[in-house]
Amino acid sequence: MSLTLGEIAQAIDAELDGDSDCPISGVATLQNAGEGQLSFLANRRYTPYLNKTGASAVILSRKDRPACPVAALITEDPYLAYVKAVYLICPQPEFKPACHASAAISATATIHPDTFIGANACIADGVRIDENVYIGPGCVLENDVEVGRDSYLVANVTLCHGVRIGERVRLHPGVVIGADGFGIANDAGKWLKIPQLGKVVVMDDVEIGANTTVDRGALEDTLIEEGVKIDNQVQIGHNVVVGAHTAIAGCVAVAGSVRIGKRCMIGGASVFSGHIEVADDVIITGMSAVANSIKEAGMYSSGMPVTENKRWRRNIARFLHLDELAKRLKEVERKIDEQN
Amino acid sequence: MSLTLGEIAQAIDAELDGDSDCPISGVATLQNAGEGQLSFLANRRYTPYLNKTGASAVILSRKDRPACPVAALITEDPYLAYVKAVYLICPQPEFKPACHASAAISATATIHPDTFIGANACIADGVRIDENVYIGPGCVLENDVEVGRDSYLVANVTLCHGVRIGERVRLHPGVVIGADGFGIANDAGKWLKIPQLGKVVVMDDVEIGANTTVDRGALEDTLIEEGVKIDNQVQIGHNVVVGAHTAIAGCVAVAGSVRIGKRCMIGGASVFSGHIEVADDVIITGMSAVANSIKEAGMYSSGMPVTENKRWRRNIARFLHLDELAKRLKEVERKIDEQN
Amino acid sequence: MSLTLGEIAQAIDAELDGDSDCPISGVATLQNAGEGQLSFLANRRYTPYLNKTGASAVILSRKDRPACPVAALITEDPYLAYVKAVYLICPQPEFKPACHASAAISATATIHPDTFIGANACIADGVRIDENVYIGPGCVLENDVEVGRDSYLVANVTLCHGVRIGERVRLHPGVVIGADGFGIANDAGKWLKIPQLGKVVVMDDVEIGANTTVDRGALEDTLIEEGVKIDNQVQIGHNVVVGAHTAIAGCVAVAGSVRIGKRCMIGGASVFSGHIEVADDVIITGMSAVANSIKEAGMYSSGMPVTENKRWRRNIARFLHLDELAKRLKEVERKIDEQN
Repeated sequence: MSLTLGEIAQAIDAELDGDSDCPISGVATLQNAGEGQLSFLANRRYTPYLNKTGASAVILSRKDRPACPVAALITEDPYLAYVKAVYLICPQPEFKPACHASAAISATATIHPDTFIGANACIADGVRIDENVYIGPGCVLENDVEVGRDSYLVANVTLCHGVRIGERVRLHPGVVIGADGFGIANDAGKWLKIPQLGKVVVMDDVEIGANTTVDRGALEDTLIEEGVKIDNQVQIGHNVVVGAHTAIAGCVAVAGSVRIGKRCMIGGASVFSGHIEVADDVIITGMSAVANSIKEAGMYSSGMPVTENKRWRRNIARFLHLDELAKRLKEVERKIDEQN
Repeated sequence: MSLTLGEIAQAIDAELDGDSDCPISGVATLQNAGEGQLSFLANRRYTPYLNKTGASAVILSRKDRPACPVAALITEDPYLAYVKAVYLICPQPEFKPACHASAAISATATIHPDTFIGANACIADGVRIDENVYIGPGCVLENDVEVGRDSYLVANVTLCHGVRIGERVRLHPGVVIGADGFGIANDAGKWLKIPQLGKVVVMDDVEIGANTTVDRGALEDTLIEEGVKIDNQVQIGHNVVVGAHTAIAGCVAVAGSVRIGKRCMIGGASVFSGHIEVADDVIITGMSAVANSIKEAGMYSSGMPVTENKRWRRNIARFLHLDELAKRLKEVERKIDEQN
Repeated sequence: MSLTLGEIAQAIDAELDGDSDCPISGVATLQNAGEGQLSFLANRRYTPYLNKTGASAVILSRKDRPACPVAALITEDPYLAYVKAVYLICPQPEFKPACHASAAISATATIHPDTFIGANACIADGVRIDENVYIGPGCVLENDVEVGRDSYLVANVTLCHGVRIGERVRLHPGVVIGADGFGIANDAGKWLKIPQLGKVVVMDDVEIGANTTVDRGALEDTLIEEGVKIDNQVQIGHNVVVGAHTAIAGCVAVAGSVRIGKRCMIGGASVFSGHIEVADDVIITGMSAVANSIKEAGMYSSGMPVTENKRWRRNIARFLHLDELAKRLKEVERKIDEQN
């Protein structure tokens, strides 16, 4: 779709410094953009590419304007402005209501006519699907699942019995929602499975990445509140509550009965121990181990960055005797105090 | 299903302190239970909810009885007793033998008539399925797979050729058993794939969580012994043996040729290096790195819990020079010895 | 398939020390091999099994020859020689071109006649599939996907729209390629999804393990170069480039816009922060956190191996005060300097 730079500036509420009539028909990175394309600068790592860009215009902040050789759209948050521009310039694909002949749909399912059901999808008894929903190929919806309007299940998604999905929810391939939580009790050396009686409730505007799993509650429901964004290969245990507008990056593991607050940002590959609470507005940096409750907003971290293997070996060997090292230091302090 | 408290007490072998005729028709948490519901107290974190519970009765240990305002079922292991009660009060769903018309079943497969085959399931040549097995929608069973009686494959499970599944095994959605192990040999700078000639054998009473993967052996079989319970998104490499009645929490990674003993408990997100052996009755706490064999039962740990980001930065900066710090301490000790 | 030892020695270019006419019809480990089977010794851990092996012959290096009680095939790289022997002795299974009646194939797809399309596979509009490709049961190929000749999708693989797969690529069950990357921008407290406009390009001779995910690029394509081997449950973020002939072990997480060099070896469960570059020929040991760019070839590590829980507790308690400990050491050094 082609727009003028002036139209875009107005729509995204940016200050235009350049030719208002310049036609824009696409977006690209600073390095690869050509004529008719709009680019953006939102991360300092890419500043070196600004003065050589072939873009027709760049969205950037005021301080970067002098280094920009082409037209500019000046704004306080170039990243957000860029996203809004993308929606204008690159309209998202739409689908037409349809139901593939190979889909297996129970006679007791209630499906809105304006819905897409893909090839080999399986819709079981009592399922309810609302208007403008997309159920991609190979998706399995077990008994009594509900999916709210405008939600989109890409492909090969599994929703177990009774799972409730809100409106405008997007589920990527391989997502499994509502599998049994990991509940076992030891009975004289053998494990007895604990029936998982709760459901999963996914509220509006949630997005869940490929191959992520969200377990059903043991007694009460696992709850993903509105606006939560979860990346790929995340594991959410039973009875967990993820607060509204929290974002969770890839490969995070959240053990059972954890409560994560609202507007948190959880870095990739972090791990949460069970039965803890995390306050609102907490930031966890990547690969951290959250072993205890966090009661105050703020940024928290653990983990150890790589060094050359030889140096790591020496340091870790010392770490394994750190307690003794601390005791030796205390002894040294004592001796010096005696001397003085 | 409604029972009296007296019937439940007898069935789970608990001491009843309360009205034997009280009707019980459901279970719930201390916080949310109401009339006619049974609750339990097995984790100290939830003790504060005991004296306000609306449950008709609570399963608990003797020491918690005084704080309980309602009828009590007293037992030494309230968690186990609760699980047994759940099976009485909440009968598990049953299925009727059936075969969905959309399932693709080879003429050379041998399938017991008392079996459920779901929509769009794919059953290849030579597969054998025993009595009372449930093969959910979208499951794929490649050539010569065997599934023992009373096993349950929820949906979208993939069993690769020759995999053998025992009796009463439960496999959750997205499980992949028998994919090729990661075997590669370097041939002048390029990787040559090593054919994976072994199978996977999953013994009786095993449960495997959503999106977990268990690779087939390179030469011999990968083996999951009886009663093993594995959570979601676990990776089990080729040639691994997991000993009977071991429990593995979510997101654990077990590299190839590892042997884990019997009755071990492996915390979430732990990682095992290849070719090591872990003794029976070992407990690994969450997010640990098991780099070497463990020869004695006991509890083992590694990993670093989060702190405020600033504090972590300071500590990790010191860690990266820990070897030098230890050397400086030694030098200080030498000087003090000289002085004395 | 049965060959003589002499034929095998010649084919794999090894020196034969034993009966050239000895028939070989299978391969096995040193512990389990019997008559007519060939074994190998490539890892010192298994040397104790050599002198008791029942194999008819063993592939090994010259230094291990004296301890071998049976015929030997002597070579500098026994592991590689073994792999070449496997291909001779155990011919890989072949498939016949076929298309299962239950597959859902768009009329606008272009599919080479010498292709296998499994049960309940879904092939959407505009897909192109080349000669001798295997599309296993339950695979979903969205619009405009391309798959090059001799590639093999085992089962339940999902390729999202526009993904391009090269020749001789092998994708294991549950693989998802081309799901949207995790792109979100904060708009006054809510997350706005960033449309992911790039594709994924997987070049020739790549293998990707079960339940691994590779996200499509935000603007440009995510790129997996030729000969890359990726294990199970790996997550590759949007815009990542993995250089040719790099091997990535299981459960690795690679955040967005990372560039990994050629011929790297990445240990299992390692994690890469976003927007960093890793040079060619870098080795990362398992469970490492790569937080910054690595500019030189070499071996890099982080992570902490397990110890007994009590010892770990003491050491980690000291670690959480390591900065203070370092300051105390400095103070001690100052006092000693004053004294001298």
